[in-house]
Amino acid sequence: MANIFYAHSGGVTSVLNTIAVNVILECKNHSNLGNVLVGKNGILGAIDNKLIPTSELTDADLKLIADTPASVFGSCRYKLGNSERDFKKIFDTFKLHNIKHLIYNGGNDSQDTTLKLWQASKKYGYELNCIGLPKTIDNDLMGMDCCPGFGSAAKYIATSTLEAALDVKSMSETSTKVFILEVMGRHAGWLAAASALAQVHDSDPPHIILMPEVTFDKDKFIQEVDHCVKVNGYCVVVASEGIRDQHDFVSADCGQDAFGHKQLGGVATVLSGYVKQNLGYKIHYAVADYLQRSAGHIKSLCDVQQAQALGKHAVQALARGETGKVFAVERLETNDYQWQIVANPIDLVANKERNIPECWITKNGMHVTKECREYMQPWIMGEVMPEFSAGIPKYFTKELPVL
Amino acid sequence: MANIFYAHSGGVTSVLNTIAVNVILECKNHSNLGNVLVGKNGILGAIDNKLIPTSELTDADLKLIADTPASVFGSCRYKLGNSERDFKKIFDTFKLHNIKHLIYNGGNDSQDTTLKLWQASKKYGYELNCIGLPKTIDNDLMGMDCCPGFGSAAKYIATSTLEAALDVKSMSETSTKVFILEVMGRHAGWLAAASALAQVHDSDPPHIILMPEVTFDKDKFIQEVDHCVKVNGYCVVVASEGIRDQHDFVSADCGQDAFGHKQLGGVATVLSGYVKQNLGYKIHYAVADYLQRSAGHIKSLCDVQQAQALGKHAVQALARGETGKVFAVERLETNDYQWQIVANPIDLVANKERNIPECWITKNGMHVTKECREYMQPWIMGEVMPEFSAGIPKYFTKELPVL
Repeated sequence: MANIFYAHSGGVTSVLNTIAVNVILECKNHSNLGNVLVGKNGILGAIDNKLIPTSELTDADLKLIADTPASVFGSCRYKLGNSERDFKKIFDTFKLHNIKHLIYNGGNDSQDTTLKLWQASKKYGYELNCIGLPKTIDNDLMGMDCCPGFGSAAKYIATSTLEAALDVKSMSETSTKVFILEVMGRHAGWLAAASALAQVHDSDPPHIILMPEVTFDKDKFIQEVDHCVKVNGYCVVVASEGIRDQHDFVSADCGQDAFGHKQLGGVATVLSGYVKQNLGYKIHYAVADYLQRSAGHIKSLCDVQQAQALGKHAVQALARGETGKVFAVERLETNDYQWQIVANPIDLVANKERNIPECWITKNGMHVTKECREYMQPWIMGEVMPEFSAGIPKYFTKELPVL
Repeated sequence: MANIFYAHSGGVTSVLNTIAVNVILECKNHSNLGNVLVGKNGILGAIDNKLIPTSELTDADLKLIADTPASVFGSCRYKLGNSERDFKKIFDTFKLHNIKHLIYNGGNDSQDTTLKLWQASKKYGYELNCIGLPKTIDNDLMGMDCCPGFGSAAKYIATSTLEAALDVKSMSETSTKVFILEVMGRHAGWLAAASALAQVHDSDPPHIILMPEVTFDKDKFIQEVDHCVKVNGYCVVVASEGIRDQHDFVSADCGQDAFGHKQLGGVATVLSGYVKQNLGYKIHYAVADYLQRSAGHIKSLCDVQQAQALGKHAVQALARGETGKVFAVERLETNDYQWQIVANPIDLVANKERNIPECWITKNGMHVTKECREYMQPWIMGEVMPEFSAGIPKYFTKELPVL
């Protein structure tokens, strides 16, 4: 009975461990599969022969791991080249531990790794069944309805936008009039767009959403902020970190310090400067950064259920002897939201990006349409809260031993 | 039966509406008190004769308002001077609406307003019973155990620190090694200190806490970050927005843009620059800003219960004819955490600040002691979650009419 190598790759999410736990649990149901060995820090665990055994983990451990955001096994940013040395080390590790199955869990760059490993296994004559599982809070993978991790991040962003907007509104008469929330998204604006889910009515905040899909126009932005403040008394902006004007990333316009060093700073800092200098309104900004992708205390039930199903399907496919596929959530053509897990070829996902369709961006380029909101809505439905202990969420924080 | 004027003042919190609702509910229990009229945008509502009636609010409205963060009535930053014009307008409004009781709900600046109004009422011969209620996420008011609003913000910060630290840890082998969370606190470091509640063991993150109580030393900070990365593989820093070095606020060291404009940016941006330039580690930062003080989705039960009790006690005191007091939470000398509501003179609170005691700050000035952690622990205990609808918290967002 050959073992399964499973690993996380790229930026973590709130439900990455949920997928891992479902891979581990499902594996126990198949007598033709051995154990799940998880790569310590992703594929590096295979290269460096650092594998985390999972057969000793108790039900209580697994329950706690599933609740824990980020990756208890470690993830990595490592682009597998065509280095023979890496492949050799990986297949040596796999041989040593009788691994003939691989599940690689990551975004579009990471599925390039799955593809390369699959191709290399054939080239080097190492028998290996390769399955890819999606993961990204960016929601930019091709061939799927929603990427696991996105729904929970979207729920966090919609909730945070709603709450911060109530704050700004209640103080706007004599204090802050403009608030900017900077969210992740270097190429795709899904996370920024998710802030629209804070709206009950069209006129509700956020008033402006800036996405990388639209070329940023400073003058139009300043005009729109001013208009919002004049109409509503305040203005809430949600901006993707990756917005660009005609020349460069907006975040690059950060000036220099006294020594001529380029200043660090993000989009929120730059946009705040534009508003302050041109309109003079009191402004505040928040940068959600890792808080948005590891907010295990406010996960989407839909996201968790899709993560669970993906983990199980990958193992079931391996038990059936399948290989060379990426599993994905497919939306069914029903009136209410229904979905199923489908298999796609790996090269449909690897190195490709899915952006927000142009028809879902409003005419002025600074918001999303009602259709977009309605399409995203199911992804944040339902709440999964962790257990709390001593006032904070109870997460798995033990160090896992390697083989 | 004279009416009560109640108003919010200064920065909002997650439990400010909870206090309001308990003032409104308790008032119905006293036959010698009229109705509660709430100032639209704090004391401005009295100056401008814009009062929000509460007698028509249904039980369902009140339940929803109590769950809603920030202020559904509006708050303000307005320093009442000694302008005869303001006082005249206020007493005209009070006379018009038969108001002979005042409950002013705010921080140390705002209690200066309560005090001035009380003194002015005597000077101008207007019969007015004045009660102050505390409020601030800064937790810097004198004469009390914990300020309503702080416990919920502290719970949010401890949870966010825990979650972001898991994220950084899981990626640190090949990605971000240093993470900075910027929190509020211009003069007092309680919010930054609350991040220590994310620790189960002493070695757990956050590894460095920077508070305004300690003069910032750039070299020592850089050394300590480097040490943490070398020992733990990563370093989590939580910094108060208000930290200062020997000369100025650290956040002031932001450089200029191409036009010579001083750059906006906070402590997190500046500290990131220090780490990047001196150590070269990959760094990320988050700025919690309003998200921390309006996080109604993760409120502390202890905080909510103290907010409820304060609202009720203020009204009960007015029913007994009391005046010139600020109510506060007092910690009892018991082994387990027990508290009661006590009355303090207003001038004990007005314009004064409570900092973190020196003995609770570690020797290197970059963390808090176990005693400090244990003292703060009860304030974040218990969870109060709002109802969710369409995937986001259900809050009160209707516009309240003014008289």
